Amino acid sequence: MRMVDLIEKKRDGGVLTKEEIEFIIQEYTADRIPDYQMSAFLMTVFYQDMTDEEITALTLAMADSGEQIDLSSINGIKVDKHSTGGVGDTTTLVLAPLVASVGVPVAKMSGRGLGYTGGTLDKLEAIPGFKIELSDQAFIEEVNKNKVAVIGQSGDLAPADKKLYALRDVTATVDSIPLIASSIMSKKIAAGADAIVLDVTTGEGAFMKNLADARRLSHMMVRIGALAKRRTMAVISDMSQPLGAAIGNGLEVIEAIETLQGKGPEDLLEMCYVLGSQMVVLGGKADTLKEARSLLEEAISSGRAFATFKQMVENQGGDASICTSPERLLTASFEVELPAKSSGVVARLIANEVGIAAMMLGAGRKTKEDAIDYGVGLRLHKKVGDSVEKGESLVTIYSNTEHIKEVKELLYKNIVIEEAAVEPPLVHEVITE
Amino acid sequence: MRMVDLIEKKRDGGVLTKEEIEFIIQEYTADRIPDYQMSAFLMTVFYQDMTDEEITALTLAMADSGEQIDLSSINGIKVDKHSTGGVGDTTTLVLAPLVASVGVPVAKMSGRGLGYTGGTLDKLEAIPGFKIELSDQAFIEEVNKNKVAVIGQSGDLAPADKKLYALRDVTATVDSIPLIASSIMSKKIAAGADAIVLDVTTGEGAFMKNLADARRLSHMMVRIGALAKRRTMAVISDMSQPLGAAIGNGLEVIEAIETLQGKGPEDLLEMCYVLGSQMVVLGGKADTLKEARSLLEEAISSGRAFATFKQMVENQGGDASICTSPERLLTASFEVELPAKSSGVVARLIANEVGIAAMMLGAGRKTKEDAIDYGVGLRLHKKVGDSVEKGESLVTIYSNTEHIKEVKELLYKNIVIEEAAVEPPLVHEVITE
Repeated sequence: MRMVDLIEKKRDGGVLTKEEIEFIIQEYTADRIPDYQMSAFLMTVFYQDMTDEEITALTLAMADSGEQIDLSSINGIKVDKHSTGGVGDTTTLVLAPLVASVGVPVAKMSGRGLGYTGGTLDKLEAIPGFKIELSDQAFIEEVNKNKVAVIGQSGDLAPADKKLYALRDVTATVDSIPLIASSIMSKKIAAGADAIVLDVTTGEGAFMKNLADARRLSHMMVRIGALAKRRTMAVISDMSQPLGAAIGNGLEVIEAIETLQGKGPEDLLEMCYVLGSQMVVLGGKADTLKEARSLLEEAISSGRAFATFKQMVENQGGDASICTSPERLLTASFEVELPAKSSGVVARLIANEVGIAAMMLGAGRKTKEDAIDYGVGLRLHKKVGDSVEKGESLVTIYSNTEHIKEVKELLYKNIVIEEAAVEPPLVHEVITE
Repeated sequence: MRMVDLIEKKRDGGVLTKEEIEFIIQEYTADRIPDYQMSAFLMTVFYQDMTDEEITALTLAMADSGEQIDLSSINGIKVDKHSTGGVGDTTTLVLAPLVASVGVPVAKMSGRGLGYTGGTLDKLEAIPGFKIELSDQAFIEEVNKNKVAVIGQSGDLAPADKKLYALRDVTATVDSIPLIASSIMSKKIAAGADAIVLDVTTGEGAFMKNLADARRLSHMMVRIGALAKRRTMAVISDMSQPLGAAIGNGLEVIEAIETLQGKGPEDLLEMCYVLGSQMVVLGGKADTLKEARSLLEEAISSGRAFATFKQMVENQGGDASICTSPERLLTASFEVELPAKSSGVVARLIANEVGIAAMMLGAGRKTKEDAIDYGVGLRLHKKVGDSVEKGESLVTIYSNTEHIKEVKELLYKNIVIEEAAVEPPLVHEVITE
C-alpha cells in the first residue's frame, strides 16, 4: 500500500477500506507517513467527506493508536461527558461532582484550553494545590472512593489524534466534520467510559456555527459511539451567547461552587440538569429523565453535590477552604464596571467576541506557550432578553492592568442593546441515534 | 500574511492576490513554508482551480524564483519548443537542428525523463561523448555560431517548480491543470526564449488523457505566455499511439537521423513540419505557415538540416561518425521479432502500454535512481491502420536479456488486430490564443 495512491483514491471520491484507514493511521503515528502526505490527505477529506464506515474505522484506528484506559475495576457504568467548547462553559466543573453525588461514577479526563479561557484543567488549577496528575491506579481508587476524579488526559491517549490535530491546526483542515467527530470520539473511546454524553454547542461562540452542522456532527458521533459499543447521546446546546455569567478561570470556579449550592445562574444550572439527567439515565441510576432530574435537584438542595465537589478538591490536593471562601479566588488588581450607554433590552451578546475580550485580559491562551492568568475575566450582569437602564453595569471586568480600553470597546460593540430581543433556546435538540 | 490563512482562503473558493501568490512561492522556495502546508494548499488548488490571473501570478513567481537566462546576446528571435510528453516522441531531436538550419536560433534547455524512455537529454547521451553541460557563455556562443545547442536545464532554473514538482509527485497533486500549466510555463519563461511553441499531447500515452483537458491546458498556457509577453502557441497532437516507429534512446537517435535525411517515418516527419512551421513563423523567418514549410522541406531535401545536426553533435563533443553510421547505436544483445498472431488491420496500438514495455526493457526510469540502457527499445513495423499478415513482424524488440516473456505479452495485449481501423488524426487543433 502506498500513501500517494490512497490520497488519490480519496481525492477522486473513492471510499477507503478499514485496512487502508488503519494503514494510514498506524504508519502516520509511527512517523512512516510524512506530514506533507497526511495534510494533502486531510484536505481531500475536507472536500470529499467520509462515509459512516470510514469515519468509524478512522476513529477506532486513532483510539487504538496508543494506550486504552481500562476502567473495568471501577464499579458501575462509567459515563463520560464532552463539550465541543464554548464561552464561559462551566458545565464540567458542576456536572462531575453533581452526577457523582447521585452514584454515577465519573472518571473524567480533561484537556487544557486554547482559546477564550482555559480548559477544565486550567480552571481546576485556579484552585491552589489542585493536582491534575494522578497515576491510573490512584485515579481509579479515587473514583471508587469518592465517585469522581478529574485529571489531565494521558499523553499516550490517542497519540494519532494529537499529532493529527497539530497538523490540522496549521493546514486549514480543522473545520471538517468527519475529522472533528473522529478526533473527539477517538479520545472518548480510548478513555474507557461505558457511555458518553456529548454537549455539542452551536452558535457564534462555538465550533459549529450553525444548527445543520451541529446536527450532522451529533448524529455522526452518536453513530460512531454505537458502532464502538458505547452508549452515546448528544445534546445540541446554544452558544450564541456565553453560558452562565462568569468567563475566566477563577471566576468560573466560583460560579461552579455557587451553582452546586443552588445559587448559580439559571441557564448554567438548567444546562447541568439537562446533561446530568442524560448521564444519570445512561449510568443506570434512573429509568427516566424526569426521575434523574429529581435526583439531581435533591443532590443540590441537600448539599450533597457541593460536598462531593469539596471532597474532590481535598482528595486531589486542593485547598478545600476555597469552597467555603471562594471570594479568595478574586485576585485581580482591578474590578471595573462597564455601564450601559443606553436603556433597552440586551438583544445580542456575541459569545466569541466576548470570549476574545476575556482572552485579551489574560484568561485564555493564544498559543500553547501563553500563560493563563487565573484571576482575570468577566462577570456578565445581563444576558440576552434582560432589561437594562442606561448607566447600569453590564459587566464587571476583572483585570491586572488598567489598560483595558480595547477590551471595553470590544464589549460595547458586542453587547447590543435594542428595544426588544428574541431569547435563544438553551437546548436545540437531543440526539440519541 | 500567514500561510494557514491563505490555504483557508483558497480552500473556501477565494481568489488569491498577486502578492499572496508571490508570498507563497518566495517563502516556500526559501524553506520558510513547510511542505505540509504547501501540499494542503496544492490540494485546494486541485479542487478549487485558479483564475487566469492567479495562474499567471503563480507562473511568474516560479519563473522568478531562481536564475532567469538572458538570451539577448543571441541574434534573432529565439523560439523554444516544449512537449508535454509521449511515447517515442523524437520531435525535439529532429526539430532543433531542422528549425536552426533555416535560420531560427534554437537555444534549447531540456530535461531528463522519468517514464517510458529517457528525456531528450538521455537520448542525446546515447551518442558517445555528447556533453549536455555547457556554461551559459559557451551555450550562447554555440547558438550564435551553429544556430542550435541543446543542454541540460540549469539547476537554478525555477527552483520553486523543482521543489513543488517533487512534492506534487508524492501527494497526488500532479493532475491539476493550473499546476501543470504553471510548471511548464515557469521553466520556459525562465529559460529566456522570445517565443514558445507547445506540443500538447493527448490520448492514452499522454498526460492529458482527453481532448477537453488538452484544450484547456493549451489555452491556459497560451494566455500565460501572452501575459508574460512571450508569443506562444500550442499544437494539440495525438498520442493514442506512439509517434514514429522507434521507442528507446539510441533507437530514437537513429530515427531522428533518418528523419533529418528524409527517410524517417511519415507521421514523425509530418509532426516536425507542423511544429517547425509554427516555430519558423514565430521566429520571423517566414510570413506564412506554407512558406515556412517550404523552407523546412528544402532544408531536409538539401541535406542542410542533417548537416546542422551533425555539426551540433560535433560541437557538443559527440562522436559525429554516428551520424553516418547510426547502426553503431544498435548495441542490444538480442533482436527479437514479434510475429502477428492473426491477419487484419492494426486497430489499436496503446501508447502508454507499449511505452511500459520499452521501460521494462530498460529504456526508461521507474525512479530517479534507475540507470537507462541506451541500446534497448522497440521498433514498430506497423501503426494503426496498417494491414498485417499472420506471422509478419509487428515489432522488433531490442533487449539485453532473453527473458522478455512479459514484454511480449504486454505488446500482444496492446497491439490489437481487427478487421478494420479508424486512424487517429496526427494533429487535433492549433491554439494561438
